[in-house]
Amino acid sequence: MAIVLGPNRYGKAETRLVRVSRDGDTHSLADFNVGIALSGDLAATHLTGDNSGVLPTDTMKNTVYAFAKKHGVGEPEEFALLLARHFVATNGQIESARVSIESFGWERLGPHSFQRKGDCTRLASVVVTAEQTQVVSGLTGLVLLNSTASEFHGFPRDRYTTLPETTDRILATAVDAKWRHMSPTADFAKSFAGVLEAVTTAFVNTYSYSLQQTLFSMGSHALHQRPEIAEIRLELPNKHHYLVDLSLFDMANDNEVFIAGDRPYGLIEGTVVRDDAPPALAEWYL
Amino acid sequence: MAIVLGPNRYGKAETRLVRVSRDGDTHSLADFNVGIALSGDLAATHLTGDNSGVLPTDTMKNTVYAFAKKHGVGEPEEFALLLARHFVATNGQIESARVSIESFGWERLGPHSFQRKGDCTRLASVVVTAEQTQVVSGLTGLVLLNSTASEFHGFPRDRYTTLPETTDRILATAVDAKWRHMSPTADFAKSFAGVLEAVTTAFVNTYSYSLQQTLFSMGSHALHQRPEIAEIRLELPNKHHYLVDLSLFDMANDNEVFIAGDRPYGLIEGTVVRDDAPPALAEWYL
Amino acid sequence: MAIVLGPNRYGKAETRLVRVSRDGDTHSLADFNVGIALSGDLAATHLTGDNSGVLPTDTMKNTVYAFAKKHGVGEPEEFALLLARHFVATNGQIESARVSIESFGWERLGPHSFQRKGDCTRLASVVVTAEQTQVVSGLTGLVLLNSTASEFHGFPRDRYTTLPETTDRILATAVDAKWRHMSPTADFAKSFAGVLEAVTTAFVNTYSYSLQQTLFSMGSHALHQRPEIAEIRLELPNKHHYLVDLSLFDMANDNEVFIAGDRPYGLIEGTVVRDDAPPALAEWYL
Amino acid sequence: MAIVLGPNRYGKAETRLVRVSRDGDTHSLADFNVGIALSGDLAATHLTGDNSGVLPTDTMKNTVYAFAKKHGVGEPEEFALLLARHFVATNGQIESARVSIESFGWERLGPHSFQRKGDCTRLASVVVTAEQTQVVSGLTGLVLLNSTASEFHGFPRDRYTTLPETTDRILATAVDAKWRHMSPTADFAKSFAGVLEAVTTAFVNTYSYSLQQTLFSMGSHALHQRPEIAEIRLELPNKHHYLVDLSLFDMANDNEVFIAGDRPYGLIEGTVVRDDAPPALAEWYL
Repeated sequence: MAIVLGPNRYGKAETRLVRVSRDGDTHSLADFNVGIALSGDLAATHLTGDNSGVLPTDTMKNTVYAFAKKHGVGEPEEFALLLARHFVATNGQIESARVSIESFGWERLGPHSFQRKGDCTRLASVVVTAEQTQVVSGLTGLVLLNSTASEFHGFPRDRYTTLPETTDRILATAVDAKWRHMSPTADFAKSFAGVLEAVTTAFVNTYSYSLQQTLFSMGSHALHQRPEIAEIRLELPNKHHYLVDLSLFDMANDNEVFIAGDRPYGLIEGTVVRDDAPPALAEWYL
Repeated sequence: MAIVLGPNRYGKAETRLVRVSRDGDTHSLADFNVGIALSGDLAATHLTGDNSGVLPTDTMKNTVYAFAKKHGVGEPEEFALLLARHFVATNGQIESARVSIESFGWERLGPHSFQRKGDCTRLASVVVTAEQTQVVSGLTGLVLLNSTASEFHGFPRDRYTTLPETTDRILATAVDAKWRHMSPTADFAKSFAGVLEAVTTAFVNTYSYSLQQTLFSMGSHALHQRPEIAEIRLELPNKHHYLVDLSLFDMANDNEVFIAGDRPYGLIEGTVVRDDAPPALAEWYL
Repeated sequence: MAIVLGPNRYGKAETRLVRVSRDGDTHSLADFNVGIALSGDLAATHLTGDNSGVLPTDTMKNTVYAFAKKHGVGEPEEFALLLARHFVATNGQIESARVSIESFGWERLGPHSFQRKGDCTRLASVVVTAEQTQVVSGLTGLVLLNSTASEFHGFPRDRYTTLPETTDRILATAVDAKWRHMSPTADFAKSFAGVLEAVTTAFVNTYSYSLQQTLFSMGSHALHQRPEIAEIRLELPNKHHYLVDLSLFDMANDNEVFIAGDRPYGLIEGTVVRDDAPPALAEWYL
Repeated sequence: MAIVLGPNRYGKAETRLVRVSRDGDTHSLADFNVGIALSGDLAATHLTGDNSGVLPTDTMKNTVYAFAKKHGVGEPEEFALLLARHFVATNGQIESARVSIESFGWERLGPHSFQRKGDCTRLASVVVTAEQTQVVSGLTGLVLLNSTASEFHGFPRDRYTTLPETTDRILATAVDAKWRHMSPTADFAKSFAGVLEAVTTAFVNTYSYSLQQTLFSMGSHALHQRPEIAEIRLELPNKHHYLVDLSLFDMANDNEVFIAGDRPYGLIEGTVVRDDAPPALAEWYL
């Protein structure tokens, strides 16, 4: 028996970049949080501290800023591809590069004035190897609520089940979604807007018997609307709103007064996929 | 010399309330985080554990939910006043009640569908005693950025000063504002919208030589626009955006590529006030 | 009526400093988060953007690092005094300086090896003017729990009271304490250790009929033990632990199984003071 | 082409349990945050909202509390196994259960008095299917620092490399470690203490030429010390401490004054494994 080095990677996390583009007096803004992870033949530094193949993570950070100037940033997926391809192309011992970007939205208030949007954060994560490229887009923090049109009943009851059945409840969630593209080439801005619209619309329009049903509706609607997407994964916390028992105060509570709960929460996770989707790289499953 | 009890208060913090109002099929939503603090003659419980004058904080929580049903909630200032007046009126030993509310905004997506807004959080904090009532409104988390039209120079230099003067920088902040009303009666919805508009507009339109100048502009614009307000206090972090030195890579950086810094940050705090404003209660200064 | 500038201040928040001191092979470590706020005659920058009296906050940051080298840091109160006195002495228009420090503890693992302690954070906050100096010490994040020896009953009941009386409950809190010193000269290390010990011991040893009673016990014990302290202020969240109703599953719950609640929580705030304490500066009340 | 349901699961996240055990006057405490995720034949609820196979997540929460009373909790790995086996055994359509527990440490202050420890959080995560059981233990939030005995040089330089080589730097990290056991039976308390000791000792004793080298040292030391462990995965942020340039103030900085950086940070991830380790379940890789 021997103790050996297994899978490993390294990189720079959370490089914060703001890129201003100036078209005369009118500016535009990209606000990214960039993460880079490289893997390949990195045994030497682990086993002996030989760093001859370890591009410093400080250099990765510098590359983010230099490329932002040299190439501009474009859509986050495009900037991530640019960076990932660079690291694989220029470092002999690096076999795979993953670049992940959080993109924070800003709303225009004037030619050079902006307000940060807090509705949700856009995500991009690409993996590049010599042979393959995978582009995953996503969003997080989209908080949606239906104040009715949600039921939950017909579930099995065991000796620890006390939940009453309900035909009218609040359904609320904070959408965390990731979707992988069929190919590394797409109109990513249009694609993102389309999935956001599809997911939101499906939430609004689904009369829901379970959050799982809503999840499948959201995912399948996105795939129907966006042919460039192979698969979508959704993580939906069930943000419970508890009906307050006001009967002790001689009042009825006709689904009007709720406690917004923090913990615990239900967590519904699922993928919706085309049955002819190309296979995913391992990183998709992480 | 004796060791004695000084100022004290107690209450329930962070009672989370969601109130749905139903106008036929069309619902509306109030989403509040309520804090209550009562003070008065509370020596007995501190000194001997005699709780005969200590209304349980659990009761305060119940009252929030019961009043939300019974009276509805209206504007956060109104609901805070309702609660504060109740606690002072019904508890002999309580001389002062402070009720503070965070109100989270939701954007309508359909008759009973909503998306949580993340632009900023609305605040209300009232203090009620037998003789006096003070209403303070506010907002927090409004993140604004001008990508130019900001300079900083002419400052004194001592031996620890290394900052270069600049005639073009990013100016960004996360507005934290509180303002106190002339009287406890106002159109609070209109007032809030007006201050938000005034503060944002002043930020956008001020060609800034210091964040202090922008602060005074924001405050004075709010007071000019809103006669119902006596005083406004602003806390403005200077969210530094550092220009990246690209000269090492043979590139110029014409205010295009920035590091968005986390810590440290400048912090500018100031009040703007009418010179004939009525005096504030002590809680204003806390 | 005119709109005028009211109270204001500015400074640098959250300057992160780690200071290593080397005594041969044996190192020691100070890990501080420093906040500086200056006030005085700052009207010009607010009204016209004239910065001739505005020492840059960047300079304040540099001063923290330069002084850490030049003078060492010592106890956080001492380093705060050093900085505050410097800013008042060297800036004509500055009348008052407040320096606040969070000090993070590290446990020694070897001559130059350390593990960050997570038990609580030590605080220091000083205010220096030409005439006066006030030193406040504190701690935050000290989480304590008694699994019995706590009761709560005898409280008034109104129509919204549903809380049952109890003679055995968990009492848990996260101590946030600040105390002001009689004078700016003290053995601050010994003083801090003494208050921490006094507060903890009083929590452990008080058979509690209310968290208020525990608060007063903690504060008075600290003042009895530490003559250099004039006054102590405690903010004690009542971290509720809810007894789970297991009767539905035909089980008794003899104070064994609890839900640790997040929100809402009780919040008990109080001061304990010597009746002959010297008056406090305004900053004490903020 | 069809759009179909892919992998999915659901459960209850963050059920907060405090379990008090009473041995006469002397109490002991377990403080857990429990997450449950079940998978199996769940297509019906996704596709049609038929919940006949969907045990409510509320029931999962109740089961946590009921089992804590009925069986006690023991080590977190044991309680996780108990729960996971229950859900697989009693729900026909459930093929796999994952139960994850965060366990928060408390230090004894007296027979029934405790202080929450903040040094690190213990983790347990088990997966149970009809055929297989996998137990993973871990820890997070262990912050370690060596103030010397760390170098970084000999790395490749490209056109974006500006980092100077160093033979003396601070090395600091916040350890996030997970290790999987050879079998579901072990003395988990002893095992956890042993890995914690091994990881910490290796950090202290490794003269480090790269954080990767320290990572491998930590992992291999843990495997050497603990035969019950098959594999360990470490995620080590490189918590950068930047040497302040004091030369502008005519001072040398002999590794004494540092800026503790927040973002960006290096991130080193790696596994150390026995070459004869049994294969892992898919969940290990997530």
